[in-house]
Amino acid sequence: MKLIRFGLPGQEKPGIVTEAGMFDVSAFGEDFGEQFLASNGLERLSQWWAQHGASCPQVPAGTRLGAPFQRPSKIVCIGLNYADHARETNAPIPTEPIVFFKSTTALVGPNDDLMIPRNSEKTDWEVELAVVIGKKASYVEEKDALDYVAGYCLHNDYSERAFQLERNGQWVKGKSCDTFAPMGPWLATKDEIKDVDNLRLWLTVNGRKMQDGNTSNFIFNVPFVVAYLSQFMTLLPGDVISTGTPAGVGLGMNPQVYLKPGDVVELGIDGLGTSKQTVVAFK
Amino acid sequence: MKLIRFGLPGQEKPGIVTEAGMFDVSAFGEDFGEQFLASNGLERLSQWWAQHGASCPQVPAGTRLGAPFQRPSKIVCIGLNYADHARETNAPIPTEPIVFFKSTTALVGPNDDLMIPRNSEKTDWEVELAVVIGKKASYVEEKDALDYVAGYCLHNDYSERAFQLERNGQWVKGKSCDTFAPMGPWLATKDEIKDVDNLRLWLTVNGRKMQDGNTSNFIFNVPFVVAYLSQFMTLLPGDVISTGTPAGVGLGMNPQVYLKPGDVVELGIDGLGTSKQTVVAFK
Repeated sequence: MKLIRFGLPGQEKPGIVTEAGMFDVSAFGEDFGEQFLASNGLERLSQWWAQHGASCPQVPAGTRLGAPFQRPSKIVCIGLNYADHARETNAPIPTEPIVFFKSTTALVGPNDDLMIPRNSEKTDWEVELAVVIGKKASYVEEKDALDYVAGYCLHNDYSERAFQLERNGQWVKGKSCDTFAPMGPWLATKDEIKDVDNLRLWLTVNGRKMQDGNTSNFIFNVPFVVAYLSQFMTLLPGDVISTGTPAGVGLGMNPQVYLKPGDVVELGIDGLGTSKQTVVAFK
Repeated sequence: MKLIRFGLPGQEKPGIVTEAGMFDVSAFGEDFGEQFLASNGLERLSQWWAQHGASCPQVPAGTRLGAPFQRPSKIVCIGLNYADHARETNAPIPTEPIVFFKSTTALVGPNDDLMIPRNSEKTDWEVELAVVIGKKASYVEEKDALDYVAGYCLHNDYSERAFQLERNGQWVKGKSCDTFAPMGPWLATKDEIKDVDNLRLWLTVNGRKMQDGNTSNFIFNVPFVVAYLSQFMTLLPGDVISTGTPAGVGLGMNPQVYLKPGDVVELGIDGLGTSKQTVVAFK
């Protein structure tokens, strides 16, 4: 299944995408979040859809999409997880995953505007594969790790490089601004993605190709990352792990390139759709 | 008011502490969290208590306390915010606040056991003043910052120093283990604390005084920190900001001292009560 949430910010309803379009599954009676996933919601929804899908109303074209899940308990990000990106930022190849958090208040819909924070001069892009956790994970072994994954979605891990790197230690300051985490368009359940270790991911700014990578170049792949994180913290259903970005960010260019109002950022991952953010000044 | 939550983990009920004891305010009908604070809950509860307090049942002595608020959207921590602690860890005095996050899955009651994570050899203590946000804060000015504060509580910001400092960048790995954030016993509303810039805070291990500081030694005080953070992320009602620890952590000793099963950690802050954690191996 491909799960979406649609409607005005804060009033999103659950839906499903098929080849026939987007359908409203509000009648199922649950939103897509921690409780839904923790209570075998994907399996229950699948059964419900088989019985009731034909009577679900279509979502009108042009309807705003929200993030495809409710606010998670945390968004965990992996830094420098592609060798080419580590090289372009002059960072050493990590010997174990670099982990940081992104505030969940950064979460927005896939096509919402990207707001450049006040006092920002270095707002940058990062196309990433995001993993959504399906059940509580603590001290999970790598061989079992995919059992704890509900699915995947497209994420643009926007980053303010001065806030991240020039404002005294710890990256979270440059990762947590409002609108810095557009997720979606959809959450693809695990079965929709045949090989998560071989997905092309790309990003353009104003139509110019900036990033064009493949998850086959992960330094640490999804099972390793899930197992690794679960040694340090409990992952809850609905938690998001963003797995790092390939080369081609503005920080890595010479001269460096950063976003300005009016720019248009588009990105996509095989099987996870595309998203598009228009850059605006903070409102 | 002094707010508590009592009962079994995951089944906590709201209560109030007065000089006469602890009282069950379940009849008010709301738990203490984001929605309560966002909807003027403190004022409404105060009025309700004035009318109904006399008929509230007492909470039996010995009842377990939970954290005094529901899981927040985030726990933000300030690093090295006391000059003596920066010196003991051989870190430079920060020129602006160092910010990191702690997973909210670390949150437990004030007297719950501290579980040493698997593969840990360097679990350390940090008594801290925690600030609880009362209303949504984005780009707040320092002069207005206390308007966004609901109150304060005692926090032990447990830290695994090898995970934090020796496992590849970013501190969050050493701050987020289960039971690493005992909060409480109570959330004291802002009016209960006459001068937040002059509170003694202390911590003992097996009865031996390890930390004995005062918030008058903050490098960055509460209004500055709230205003500062709000430049980088939106703070939501119920969000917690832990303001850093004074000197006396195990990392700063020569030789270094870390916790082992059977140790007993006790801590307190003026006006915010005391807490006590018994150290056990991860179960």
